[in-house]
Amino acid sequence: MVILGIDPGLARVGYGLIEVNNQRQVKMLDCGIIKTNKNQYEGERMVEIAKDLRVLIRKWKPGLAAVEKFFFYKSSTTISVVQARGVLIMTLARFKVPIVEFPPMQIKLAVAGSGHAKKDEVLEAVMRELRLKVPPRPDDAADALAIALTGLFQQ
Amino acid sequence: MVILGIDPGLARVGYGLIEVNNQRQVKMLDCGIIKTNKNQYEGERMVEIAKDLRVLIRKWKPGLAAVEKFFFYKSSTTISVVQARGVLIMTLARFKVPIVEFPPMQIKLAVAGSGHAKKDEVLEAVMRELRLKVPPRPDDAADALAIALTGLFQQ
Repeated sequence: MVILGIDPGLARVGYGLIEVNNQRQVKMLDCGIIKTNKNQYEGERMVEIAKDLRVLIRKWKPGLAAVEKFFFYKSSTTISVVQARGVLIMTLARFKVPIVEFPPMQIKLAVAGSGHAKKDEVLEAVMRELRLKVPPRPDDAADALAIALTGLFQQ
Repeated sequence: MVILGIDPGLARVGYGLIEVNNQRQVKMLDCGIIKTNKNQYEGERMVEIAKDLRVLIRKWKPGLAAVEKFFFYKSSTTISVVQARGVLIMTLARFKVPIVEFPPMQIKLAVAGSGHAKKDEVLEAVMRELRLKVPPRPDDAADALAIALTGLFQQ
């Protein structure tokens, strides 16, 4: 099964794709970011996000999507992130991709063994788990792989 | 020109359509709510919202959309509203409908003459402006008409 991990955002959406076989061996298929143009209106940026996510879904046909979950917001910046998250969730639902959602602490706990793990510790754990020789870049892509792994571990 | 007012939500999206002619005379075309099933997963509910909004856009071909704007959130309930708002904005952008956004106080001020106007005062002002004999129902539809009128007044 292919699992798609998503780190939601408006400026950058991190994505990570992993595949697990019947022996529960896991490998990375792809990772990266969907980057949108900050000079565009947010509606157009979300159109771009939806379009690029559709391309990923059609290419990799994930059987599960794991998406970071939010609980509480303060600034107007994060409102745009939550709006973009809505577009991501809706697009996944349109393609009938089952969705699991995890808050940041649960992702750190699942991947690095502690809900308070630092960014480097999570990155190391992701590299170990996926047997990567070089760190996945940028950060949002690495985070998305951590989210995908959390989706796998929770199965 | 046709103006579409939108009161965002996940359980219910209010919409109101008004038309203004060259003499700046305004009339109501339609109003109502997009209601989603609370037993469905939020992704599916947002798919429904996007679908129903597409039907409205294709039918009425609005030249402008006015959408209520949010600034600050606390509860997890409103996160789902912000996510749904993202889907609404993205769908409007996909159809190239220009969008204007107003916070609640600006809508009350534009329609009822005071940023602290009560719900009844806003409703009365909407009825007067659109020469409606019966109050538009439900509340979310009336609110959406107030938002559409704000879009008109700001032109």
